[in-house]
Amino acid sequence: MKSNSFLALIALVVIFNVASVCAQSTTLMGFSDQASSKQVQLEKAFDAMLEAKNLDQWMKHLSARPHHVGSPYDKEVVDFVAAKFKEWGYQVKIEQFDILFPTPKVRLLEMIAPNSYTATLTEPPVEGDASSMQTDEALPGYNCFSIDGDVTAALVYVNYGLPEDYVELEKRGIDVKGKIVIAKYMGSWRGIKPKVAAEKGAIGCIIYSDPKDDGYFRGDVYPKGPYKNEHGVQRGAVMDLPFAPGDPLTPGYGSTKNAKRLKPEEATSLTKIPVLPISYHDALPLLKALQGPVAPSSWRGALPITYHIGPGPAQVRLKLEFNWDLKPAYNVIATMNGTTYPDEWVIRGNHHDAWVHGANDPISGLVALMEEARAVGTLAKQGHRPKRTMMYCAWGAEEPGLIGSTEWVETHADELRQKAVAYINTDGTNRGFLGAGGSHTLEKFFDPITRDVMDPVKNVSLFERRNAVELVNGRASWDTYKLYALGSGSDYSPFFQHLGVASFNLGFGGEGSGGEYHTMYDSYDLYKRFKDPEFQYGVALVKVAGRTSLRLANAEVLPFEFQHFTETVSEYIDEVSELATSLREETAKENKLIRDGHYALAADPNQVYIAPTPKQEVPHFNFAPLHNALNVLKLQANAFTLATKTPTKNAPQLNQTLKDMERSLTRAEGLPRRPWFKHHIYAPGFYTGYGVKTLPGVREAIEQRNYPEVQEQIDILAQVLMGFSTHIGQAVAVME
Amino acid sequence: MKSNSFLALIALVVIFNVASVCAQSTTLMGFSDQASSKQVQLEKAFDAMLEAKNLDQWMKHLSARPHHVGSPYDKEVVDFVAAKFKEWGYQVKIEQFDILFPTPKVRLLEMIAPNSYTATLTEPPVEGDASSMQTDEALPGYNCFSIDGDVTAALVYVNYGLPEDYVELEKRGIDVKGKIVIAKYMGSWRGIKPKVAAEKGAIGCIIYSDPKDDGYFRGDVYPKGPYKNEHGVQRGAVMDLPFAPGDPLTPGYGSTKNAKRLKPEEATSLTKIPVLPISYHDALPLLKALQGPVAPSSWRGALPITYHIGPGPAQVRLKLEFNWDLKPAYNVIATMNGTTYPDEWVIRGNHHDAWVHGANDPISGLVALMEEARAVGTLAKQGHRPKRTMMYCAWGAEEPGLIGSTEWVETHADELRQKAVAYINTDGTNRGFLGAGGSHTLEKFFDPITRDVMDPVKNVSLFERRNAVELVNGRASWDTYKLYALGSGSDYSPFFQHLGVASFNLGFGGEGSGGEYHTMYDSYDLYKRFKDPEFQYGVALVKVAGRTSLRLANAEVLPFEFQHFTETVSEYIDEVSELATSLREETAKENKLIRDGHYALAADPNQVYIAPTPKQEVPHFNFAPLHNALNVLKLQANAFTLATKTPTKNAPQLNQTLKDMERSLTRAEGLPRRPWFKHHIYAPGFYTGYGVKTLPGVREAIEQRNYPEVQEQIDILAQVLMGFSTHIGQAVAVME
Repeated sequence: MKSNSFLALIALVVIFNVASVCAQSTTLMGFSDQASSKQVQLEKAFDAMLEAKNLDQWMKHLSARPHHVGSPYDKEVVDFVAAKFKEWGYQVKIEQFDILFPTPKVRLLEMIAPNSYTATLTEPPVEGDASSMQTDEALPGYNCFSIDGDVTAALVYVNYGLPEDYVELEKRGIDVKGKIVIAKYMGSWRGIKPKVAAEKGAIGCIIYSDPKDDGYFRGDVYPKGPYKNEHGVQRGAVMDLPFAPGDPLTPGYGSTKNAKRLKPEEATSLTKIPVLPISYHDALPLLKALQGPVAPSSWRGALPITYHIGPGPAQVRLKLEFNWDLKPAYNVIATMNGTTYPDEWVIRGNHHDAWVHGANDPISGLVALMEEARAVGTLAKQGHRPKRTMMYCAWGAEEPGLIGSTEWVETHADELRQKAVAYINTDGTNRGFLGAGGSHTLEKFFDPITRDVMDPVKNVSLFERRNAVELVNGRASWDTYKLYALGSGSDYSPFFQHLGVASFNLGFGGEGSGGEYHTMYDSYDLYKRFKDPEFQYGVALVKVAGRTSLRLANAEVLPFEFQHFTETVSEYIDEVSELATSLREETAKENKLIRDGHYALAADPNQVYIAPTPKQEVPHFNFAPLHNALNVLKLQANAFTLATKTPTKNAPQLNQTLKDMERSLTRAEGLPRRPWFKHHIYAPGFYTGYGVKTLPGVREAIEQRNYPEVQEQIDILAQVLMGFSTHIGQAVAVME
Repeated sequence: MKSNSFLALIALVVIFNVASVCAQSTTLMGFSDQASSKQVQLEKAFDAMLEAKNLDQWMKHLSARPHHVGSPYDKEVVDFVAAKFKEWGYQVKIEQFDILFPTPKVRLLEMIAPNSYTATLTEPPVEGDASSMQTDEALPGYNCFSIDGDVTAALVYVNYGLPEDYVELEKRGIDVKGKIVIAKYMGSWRGIKPKVAAEKGAIGCIIYSDPKDDGYFRGDVYPKGPYKNEHGVQRGAVMDLPFAPGDPLTPGYGSTKNAKRLKPEEATSLTKIPVLPISYHDALPLLKALQGPVAPSSWRGALPITYHIGPGPAQVRLKLEFNWDLKPAYNVIATMNGTTYPDEWVIRGNHHDAWVHGANDPISGLVALMEEARAVGTLAKQGHRPKRTMMYCAWGAEEPGLIGSTEWVETHADELRQKAVAYINTDGTNRGFLGAGGSHTLEKFFDPITRDVMDPVKNVSLFERRNAVELVNGRASWDTYKLYALGSGSDYSPFFQHLGVASFNLGFGGEGSGGEYHTMYDSYDLYKRFKDPEFQYGVALVKVAGRTSLRLANAEVLPFEFQHFTETVSEYIDEVSELATSLREETAKENKLIRDGHYALAADPNQVYIAPTPKQEVPHFNFAPLHNALNVLKLQANAFTLATKTPTKNAPQLNQTLKDMERSLTRAEGLPRRPWFKHHIYAPGFYTGYGVKTLPGVREAIEQRNYPEVQEQIDILAQVLMGFSTHIGQAVAVME
């Protein structure tokens, strides 16, 4: 690999690369000219079948009653969806997993000093929203996988409750040990807040939605507008998701009927302290009663008060008890076997369980998946069966922690490793612009889809509309549709980050925002008034996801390529390298300011100020292994592009190799301290929860100042990239 | 000037310059070694005399009752201050000007649709603040120099009411023509808001203090804390101050007893529409009643509502009538003739009139000036009379528009042009860090003062403490104390920008902020609780201003120098040049986005959006004259530094030349469309009001896209700088 012939190859690649750009044709990637024309015809027929009214009717039905995990109506949803899939010609299985799903038994939050207040913890019905009356069947506001507890202590306001917020508290001499913290939603995934609070010694955690982030500050509140009214409460899981999603009682394996289960008290991914979400109506009296330092400017929300930090004088009691029961999570798996490659699976998924009615989350995405499945089924009946096997999955128990999909993936891991080509996820969607995240090995494949599908209102392609947003926001023009890197928060995680199946997550947004997320008010009525009333963007999503599925299913050569991936990883490597440099410079600068006493000098003598202590200086790291690996990757990616043509000889063998490519970006050992996450390019952040950390081993070691681990992870990542390059080489060899 | 000898001079200057830096001694600038020692002794004696309790007692007395222009207690304040000056050995004159000072007769603001609300327009007494009970003598909330009016119209929320805010309104298809606007205080000087509103066709203007900028969002409100409570109203002038301050009836000349006066209706600097300031208590019902588009995120304040723009459905009536009377503005002028140079005047000033009690504004500054005058007077009695004439001035009628000082300067303009060496201004002051603005010809002189005076709490010099603030806020370390450039907002404007007298504005701040400014609550009680309770920083200000005055008064050679000025002007030239470049690039980019339709594509189809129209492209300007003038200036400034030594021959003649230096930065014609402002380096911005615009002719022509004027002003500024260099050359010649 290090011979002179490589230099010649580079020159060749450069020349051909330019040529290939100029010679771009409209032939679909992975298709011969002839097959491409046929596929384009198929997509026309597919588009012609789509009916917005189906999405509307199904949403109305599926969101008619609360349908959380284990609820009667969730089973009705499952049966309805399964029946539809059957009707459309699929083989349908309902796979049940029995999972831990705690539901609230006792929820008490009261302030006992300096005055008394008992939190209402209720979301009253609102005018014009029939769903909001159905309080009997609904789960009230709670955080799933909070432990039981009964704690009383002084209250401390901790902003978003992130590690950096505690640095600010320390500067003010405030310790949360033995206290109950109140944190705002946002800024991270909610589960990070109790996790960090517990690490800092807090004994309880309250999370509330501030109207600045999620209420009247943003727009008119429900029912006048779509934003969160004073009573809205965001439910949600708080298990340690960045450690591992899935049933806490069966870590790493499927929670099948007879699986060995931990006891709840043995489960490591539950919270360490009790945690409860509340509305801003309930938060206001508590925050108003706080004294102590005024919160930093950036911490202050939109309640009509001066935000103080505490601790106290507000003393609160938080008492929580849960039913620690197993509940059934149903996955509906609809399969249509492929005509040519039945053992190559293209998997589409969207969850069906909701926190309450879930018209937006997840039904808006689920009805798009159903319409896609209906059209694909109809085409099949007309003789256009896909070449590869297509699977349409409606996942259960996503809300408590991606449990349905995770248990299914863990159960079928071996088979999936052999057969899965790609996983395409959707979830809640509304109107605006196409947002698409995914593996950059499929970025080039995805780009033309965004140019083929039109924005339903503006009469330009989705690509053009999305690019306009980039431009008017002062960012650079896109030459290609850019996939964002996937973190977590929906069912792609087990496929992508655990198994290494190339994945997408697709949806529309940007013009339908509101405050209904995980509240009683995520209803059909709200969706019809404020989200995508005519389901125009819902149909556009069917077109995008349908093309993505169908092209992957019918391509003669699987449409992976590696130059987009290489460029993207190259950017990530620059980022982590710059991160280390800036951390080094900032640390040195900060340490000097501390040692020279400037912080103490600048501080207001009338306020408590504890100057930070100097941090360990950041050493220089050896990034050379990464740059060397990147060079090899570039050569191989270019060689692959150069060798690719369709039709190609050995297509079946090539497809086998390509299908497994993403897997070679994983390691069985996984990431440090969280072995479930095996992908070494993309992971949810350990302290962001949903937000992605690319090159996570290296990046998080730098961020967390774990200097020995930085170098270890650089070396590991370099090996992963070298292994990936080797696999590309094998694909090239098949073509030669 | 363009001969080869100049090149030799450059080399020489560079060498000597380095040498002079290395040879820095502790001898005071402008003093011989011997005189310097004597001056240092004098300053020690000065410091030893200072008594914080004087400041305290005088503040208590002077702020005991409301003392606005023309009030009985303002006359008592004047007489008290005059008597004190006399007691301390000064010749004292009370110079009276009879000026237009409208006071409110009728103030009515009511909402008549969609529901009715009558604004309270009152500031109720608060517990623990005796002053707040004295409502009988106090002027209520109003904007001075608003015209009379009785208008009824739909309301439009215009954010801060700045030109850029109207651009946002236009994008939403909203026109304020025939409407009443409601604007937040802040973002500019208040008078800009009705000025711009009238330019846009509005027929009335309401200004309110939003709790985000000035209320509970910032901290606990009065009387619990120092921030603005819901009833606080900021009074203030709204005459067209950036056009010209002073009595509107005697533009450009003194409003002496028999001066020819315009009729009020002929005065051009009154507002064009009626304008009234209100509290956030009174603003809330109006803002709550607005509909129409939701305001952009950056426009939203901290009231517990969704901020809408309107217009309407809120309809409001604003009815205002004023007494258009002449009132006496008294300037107390205390003079101590200099022993050596009686015709070289060092002038200190601070106003005495307040909007209500004015404990902070202006009394906190006035008592510091008084203590300084007392100490200087005592030293004189002990035989240490200053070499130059020192004048301590307590200005009247500053609040309505710098009227007392402006009329005095206009009346004595000829004498001041001949005799004024420098003007040192103070105004409200509290605790924290030294803020000093002024002419950069005195920056080098001022720097050692900030190193000689200690922070009264932190046991380091004022310089060190101020520099610590720069450092901890991520800015570069200061090698010298940096004077900010003076805009407007206090009595230095007539001296500095109208006459061209080198000026300072001095004060402490940063740790005593609150919401009392121009309200009923700017009281002794508030000051003692929240500002500078022990008057420690008040005494520090006496030390700073006293050294500044005394060193200027006693220096053998006036301590001007021109390298700091040259470096500063060089930065300003870079700024305006970069401003032109960035405006050109942004305009081209923006025009392309408009022409390519990206704005329309990106816009939400559910909201009104009117894409902006392309703007005229920004041409390239010839900045060469400025750079050439700057080169000459650099040479002359260096030559001056090289030639300077103390004692020097021809000191009296040199001082005469130096005293007039700043004047050569003015032109009799003044700035475009505002001839009163004659300084060509510093001016208040035409659309900022108080905020400075350096190189105002050039900078504002660029900002306002007046391209022909940009080139004109570049040429004019180059001439001004060349003239200044010639004057430096004359000073050098005197020394040779």
